[in-house]
Amino acid sequence: MHILITGAAGMLGRKLADRLVRDGGLGGREITRLTLADLNPPSAPAGFGGTVTPLAADLAQRGTGAKMVAHRPDVIFHLAAIVSGEAEADFDKGYAINLDGTRDLFDAIRAQDGYCPRLIFASSIAVVGAPLPSPIPDEYHTTPLTSYGTQKAICELLLADYTRRGIFDGIGLRFPTVCIRPGTPNKAASGFFSNILREPLVGQPAILPVPDTIRHWHTSPRSAVGFMIHAATMELSAVGPRRNLSMPGVSATVADQIEALRRVAGDQAVALIERRPDPLITAICQGWAPGFEARRARELGFTSEDDFEQIIRVHIEDELERRA
Amino acid sequence: MHILITGAAGMLGRKLADRLVRDGGLGGREITRLTLADLNPPSAPAGFGGTVTPLAADLAQRGTGAKMVAHRPDVIFHLAAIVSGEAEADFDKGYAINLDGTRDLFDAIRAQDGYCPRLIFASSIAVVGAPLPSPIPDEYHTTPLTSYGTQKAICELLLADYTRRGIFDGIGLRFPTVCIRPGTPNKAASGFFSNILREPLVGQPAILPVPDTIRHWHTSPRSAVGFMIHAATMELSAVGPRRNLSMPGVSATVADQIEALRRVAGDQAVALIERRPDPLITAICQGWAPGFEARRARELGFTSEDDFEQIIRVHIEDELERRA
Repeated sequence: MHILITGAAGMLGRKLADRLVRDGGLGGREITRLTLADLNPPSAPAGFGGTVTPLAADLAQRGTGAKMVAHRPDVIFHLAAIVSGEAEADFDKGYAINLDGTRDLFDAIRAQDGYCPRLIFASSIAVVGAPLPSPIPDEYHTTPLTSYGTQKAICELLLADYTRRGIFDGIGLRFPTVCIRPGTPNKAASGFFSNILREPLVGQPAILPVPDTIRHWHTSPRSAVGFMIHAATMELSAVGPRRNLSMPGVSATVADQIEALRRVAGDQAVALIERRPDPLITAICQGWAPGFEARRARELGFTSEDDFEQIIRVHIEDELERRA
Repeated sequence: MHILITGAAGMLGRKLADRLVRDGGLGGREITRLTLADLNPPSAPAGFGGTVTPLAADLAQRGTGAKMVAHRPDVIFHLAAIVSGEAEADFDKGYAINLDGTRDLFDAIRAQDGYCPRLIFASSIAVVGAPLPSPIPDEYHTTPLTSYGTQKAICELLLADYTRRGIFDGIGLRFPTVCIRPGTPNKAASGFFSNILREPLVGQPAILPVPDTIRHWHTSPRSAVGFMIHAATMELSAVGPRRNLSMPGVSATVADQIEALRRVAGDQAVALIERRPDPLITAICQGWAPGFEARRARELGFTSEDDFEQIIRVHIEDELERRA
């Protein structure tokens, strides 16, 4: 079995490749080849016995899709995208990569005769925009308030149409915000959700720029990878033509996050959080999704954590203990 | 004031141009110039004192957008598209015209400095797909089951994003099925909705290929033109970022249509309808929208007929009496 990951150098791409190698197979089939595509493709994951092809791929260039599917991967995880802030700052680049780059990949699949891979697309909760109900039903309309969310919503529509036409067997996953992101604090507007947990867990201070009443929708990196594995192996005929699913997650306020941290790591960890309100970040967050019903996804077997304490414990197991 | 109509040779494009010329102005401003763009552009409407520019424009060709907005029309009615059946039969042509052609127009507007026209986009109820509630709420998601519906839904997303960015002041109108279409019977799957009324009204037979329990969503050509005039002149700041609106209409079963015909034209007209069931057309119709709440559009001042008898009377006034 040959698997292609686009955006393979990103946090989720790396974790997905590691998981595939750990599992050794996908849906009971041995993985013999991994194509890892990115601007600067990552090296081979440790312990993989098959062939790894690192592929330098720039989705802003037309023809990149053809290069990526030239060897007809059986399963494609399409994670490559530029992030929300960059897509908002650079209109042309956002559309060129997130929309046209995805379409270039889709059309490259279409151009190959007798080829119909499973395609898992990383969509985003940014496809919805305020004002929003809580929780958001599966049938709620997509009215994004960013160019990034617009591009993801458009790709969802393309994915459903190309799937309906038999060009590939696609499924789009609307990921919750992934928390706790490993690594160092970044300047993304959503970065604080991870920072206020990850840093205090290792004795470092962190800044909270929003009121602790802000409610948002989260899942762990482990669950996010789990969604992709499930999407790659599940029976899709039961899904029907509505191929874009809001993934399950944990709806939590910042106060819920902080109390979960207190239960796991005590008052001394919570004391490392410094409240420094930022009106701009607060305004941005207030437009974000508070949570989804995710009824269809749960019925189809997708699972996430039940509460924020579990999300923190997953981080400790996967990032702190495994690396210790 | 300079007005551009794309798809000006189509039924709605012609009726819109006629109405603009009859009104003499738009929103209290005199119309001095009309640009009528189409593959084979129509001639000038009778009685117009301003400048008419027929523009041969093929949206399958890149650069057509720049040609259409070179003289910076104040208001753009973007009606040009290939229809549902053709977009389904020809994948490439559908995407090239309905999606890329629209984006070419949008980007041509963006390329002009200091230019921000009002843009009215003809969307469609094909952006939704079965299974559907009745009526469909404004917040219902778009899960089209045709490439045409996919292309319209994508253009809605682009319209909202380009509007949010200040590139133009856009509004998308999801037209109900327009009934009674003037002209001769056509082979579109939806053609019978008009045929079974228009033909008997002039003593001609018509074929009904579906059970009379089929429920669908209709408006008259006069109301459809009225939606566009209202969209071009209303205050849009109150609409906010959700710029795509399901227009009001009449939700009626085929039996409702037939009873309205009986009230207007008697049993002898109804007797001209021959029931000849077509399983394929019946299956297609069962996936169509039964009706919309259209709450936001009504609150914003869009109006349609109240029942099917009014729709028939509009046809008699506008097509039979005016031409008599």
